[in-house]
Amino acid sequence: MTRRHAADPRESYLYFQVMTTRWMDNDSYRHMNNTTYYSFFDTIVNQYLIEHGVLDVERGPIIGLVAETTCRYFSSIGFPAKINVGLRVGHIGSTSIRYEVGLFKDDEDVASAQGHFVHVYVNRESGRPIAMPDALKSVATQLMPGPEMTGLRTRLREGRTIA
Amino acid sequence: MTRRHAADPRESYLYFQVMTTRWMDNDSYRHMNNTTYYSFFDTIVNQYLIEHGVLDVERGPIIGLVAETTCRYFSSIGFPAKINVGLRVGHIGSTSIRYEVGLFKDDEDVASAQGHFVHVYVNRESGRPIAMPDALKSVATQLMPGPEMTGLRTRLREGRTIA
Amino acid sequence: MTRRHAADPRESYLYFQVMTTRWMDNDSYRHMNNTTYYSFFDTIVNQYLIEHGVLDVERGPIIGLVAETTCRYFSSIGFPAKINVGLRVGHIGSTSIRYEVGLFKDDEDVASAQGHFVHVYVNRESGRPIAMPDALKSVATQLMPGPEMTGLRTRLREGRTIA
Amino acid sequence: MTRRHAADPRESYLYFQVMTTRWMDNDSYRHMNNTTYYSFFDTIVNQYLIEHGVLDVERGPIIGLVAETTCRYFSSIGFPAKINVGLRVGHIGSTSIRYEVGLFKDDEDVASAQGHFVHVYVNRESGRPIAMPDALKSVATQLMPGPEMTGLRTRLREGRTIA
Repeated sequence: MTRRHAADPRESYLYFQVMTTRWMDNDSYRHMNNTTYYSFFDTIVNQYLIEHGVLDVERGPIIGLVAETTCRYFSSIGFPAKINVGLRVGHIGSTSIRYEVGLFKDDEDVASAQGHFVHVYVNRESGRPIAMPDALKSVATQLMPGPEMTGLRTRLREGRTIA
Repeated sequence: MTRRHAADPRESYLYFQVMTTRWMDNDSYRHMNNTTYYSFFDTIVNQYLIEHGVLDVERGPIIGLVAETTCRYFSSIGFPAKINVGLRVGHIGSTSIRYEVGLFKDDEDVASAQGHFVHVYVNRESGRPIAMPDALKSVATQLMPGPEMTGLRTRLREGRTIA
Repeated sequence: MTRRHAADPRESYLYFQVMTTRWMDNDSYRHMNNTTYYSFFDTIVNQYLIEHGVLDVERGPIIGLVAETTCRYFSSIGFPAKINVGLRVGHIGSTSIRYEVGLFKDDEDVASAQGHFVHVYVNRESGRPIAMPDALKSVATQLMPGPEMTGLRTRLREGRTIA
Repeated sequence: MTRRHAADPRESYLYFQVMTTRWMDNDSYRHMNNTTYYSFFDTIVNQYLIEHGVLDVERGPIIGLVAETTCRYFSSIGFPAKINVGLRVGHIGSTSIRYEVGLFKDDEDVASAQGHFVHVYVNRESGRPIAMPDALKSVATQLMPGPEMTGLRTRLREGRTIA
């Protein structure tokens, strides 16, 4: 069943980008539409990989396909706020990485929303999963919280059923 | 951890709408962007509620806020395909409903992607969760699979960790 | 300066597709966001070209880049309406085509919005404009209104400055 | 007919905001989709009006409806670039304002795309155009280029037909 995780603090993420919101992000309820939150998830993941030289969208032999995403929404956010998007890595498998993303409104210290994003790395031509290159694993490993964050992460995992 | 559910068959959903894709839905990999899939989730839920007279976006005292969404992606889909969007209800709580959505490409019988969407019903002014009116509960109950689908749903729930 | 054209009747377009709207299309004013209208422009142009075999997005040597677009908004439209999108061709140059698009809400006979969309055809590798193949010109010519529509088009061109 | 204006220099705009691009902005050709450009137009106009206290989206008696937009595309732009969005006012009527917008990629000094955006100001309840309040006119007037820019603007207006 569904679990309610507590909203993460900013310190639980390891890489940040500030992203801007747009007038059209807000829907009929004048908050950012729930769909739009996810546009920040793949933006930060791909931006991190491109910046660190392990994803070449045009020509690289390996691309990341999205296998699964989730988001929990804690408080409303939207235009004209800026969003601080935080990224960490939760798990590195042989062909996939589980990224975790938090969205922080302006200067707030507690996430307005958070979720995860699983990339499976595949051969661009065949579409088949392949063993990740060491460079990609290494870059992802830099975003895994160290032992000092274990207590925090254990606490974050606790939750209860909401629906 | 994350579970891999098998892709649902079309028969496991109880309400359908055909939706059209757009040129801009496809991203750099020439498939529908993972974010865009969710735009069909809130469309079918709100369309169902509006059609059945239990959601008045402009003036109703109760609106549905999104508490949690998930999607698993099984096969690519995108412009120029049409999408058959299927809806059912997984759980009805006192203030929230868990909807389940499947996306079927053109005439395919197995979902290209599926997930869930939790609406919490709140007072429009206060933003506080409120007990759902009977009319809303009744309309949602019509989308709960009956006992003949229990075996199917149990099977669908089985999975294994992928990341 | 800007001109106010009268809204076109449905009969002034030669090719139609029905497209569905989405919950997130509506913005804070609960109408379809002005940006989203344009998503129907490139969808119908590309759909027409793909269907008629003159655009291969993945592998064709020629692609269409957008040089200019305009839209005039006459009346509001948006979720949950369906949109009948009408297409015609206004001008065929040596390397470009000017398409004209009208958006009709549900069964309405007068456009809610209309505009144009100029595609310049370029070599995919070099990005340089190239002479259009005969097949593309021929397919586009089929959407040029015949002499019986000249009076209509002359009338449509008349307008006055609004801003 | 359509005119090709030269791309504007950055100095021809009077108010700027830096906006971030998103992974999903890019379409099948791996450039920002032509539709998405317009999302920066209404964002900068509304942001300017909100910041200067002359637009209250939730409660104000006057809202701005979009009557007409245009965009000319000069060079490709898209994720992961940042966009410097420039704004000026071209004309102030009795009930409408013509805004002009230029999009500059990262540190480039020549616009990648530019266009205009006409807002008609209406009574929120009736939807009828109304005379603009002095505060709105005054805030808009601050974005009208002064006489020292007349030569520049005259030059920018010259063009030739492309389609």
